[in-house]
Amino acid sequence: MSATKDIDALIELMAKLPGLGPRSARRAVLHLIRKRGLLMTPLADLMTEVAAGARECLNCGNIGTADICDICNANKRANGQICVVEDVADLWALERSGVFKGRYHVLGGTLSALDGVGPEDLSIPRLVDRISSEDVTEVILALNATIDGQTTAHYIADQLEGRVVLTSLAQGVPIGGELDYLDDGTISAALTARKTV
Amino acid sequence: MSATKDIDALIELMAKLPGLGPRSARRAVLHLIRKRGLLMTPLADLMTEVAAGARECLNCGNIGTADICDICNANKRANGQICVVEDVADLWALERSGVFKGRYHVLGGTLSALDGVGPEDLSIPRLVDRISSEDVTEVILALNATIDGQTTAHYIADQLEGRVVLTSLAQGVPIGGELDYLDDGTISAALTARKTV
Repeated sequence: MSATKDIDALIELMAKLPGLGPRSARRAVLHLIRKRGLLMTPLADLMTEVAAGARECLNCGNIGTADICDICNANKRANGQICVVEDVADLWALERSGVFKGRYHVLGGTLSALDGVGPEDLSIPRLVDRISSEDVTEVILALNATIDGQTTAHYIADQLEGRVVLTSLAQGVPIGGELDYLDDGTISAALTARKTV
Repeated sequence: MSATKDIDALIELMAKLPGLGPRSARRAVLHLIRKRGLLMTPLADLMTEVAAGARECLNCGNIGTADICDICNANKRANGQICVVEDVADLWALERSGVFKGRYHVLGGTLSALDGVGPEDLSIPRLVDRISSEDVTEVILALNATIDGQTTAHYIADQLEGRVVLTSLAQGVPIGGELDYLDDGTISAALTARKTV
């Protein structure tokens, strides 16, 4: 490789991003070098800023730039509904559909006997706390339609039964599919037609 | 979108990289935020450094961190051979194969009547100058096996005929294929079996 050490190191780091391999990382780095003023410098500056500022919301687990995220801070979103998702990517997917007006709770994964993930490894205890502290009336279980996702949904439903109305996303979520990959229309339809567990 | 402005802006910039769309940019940014200490900060620092330091070699057009690149500076690579490529990505592909020991000349594109790219838009005049100033005995035309690439190769061959030995890559380069996408073995074979134009 004729490029200098820094460029080689940059290619190596870029190849660690999901969706990029060594080959596409090289193309991306070449593209960045060609547009270093317009793209590379602003990108580097933004990354530095986000790396310094980004943190998980202490309440819901969403990613933002403050200890409590914008959604948890917004009073108009305290409508008694909490939507439980596995991952921040799922929260973003639901927000893009624009249908849900309540708050979220990000679990940070699913229960998995195989990987040794128990309820205490996820933020399920904090969810149970939030039910009383935030006057929650409805919990929407928006977990992925995978076996682990549905196992987790059943566990949470058991924990919260009788305390709140429990709903799950309506049909429309394909079996085995993952929320983050769905189109916004399907997510809207599934949220609108949600049904009692 | 619930993420703050900086994160949204970062996703938008990442989506401009070749190989990443809005969806994969979101996944990449989430991955970066989760690994902000281990991946995001070093990546941002390296980008800043490369953006400040990277430049095109004044002699051959390769990308490096000095006015004259490592290959043009290396005396042992002044063996009288110049390998002409369209793009820095092609130069990197040839360097990975490790067979070629001479110098390069990056054209920066191909002649194209349709896009209005003439010989003066590429670095063909500088290539002609280098033939005498660097005592070049052989020019290897390693252009892509596309119509534009071969048209450009013919034009360069016309310009240099009688002054140097002109060779082109051997069969092994698939018709319509692009150098940067070939495996190293095919590139080695094609370089080793190059033939006189």
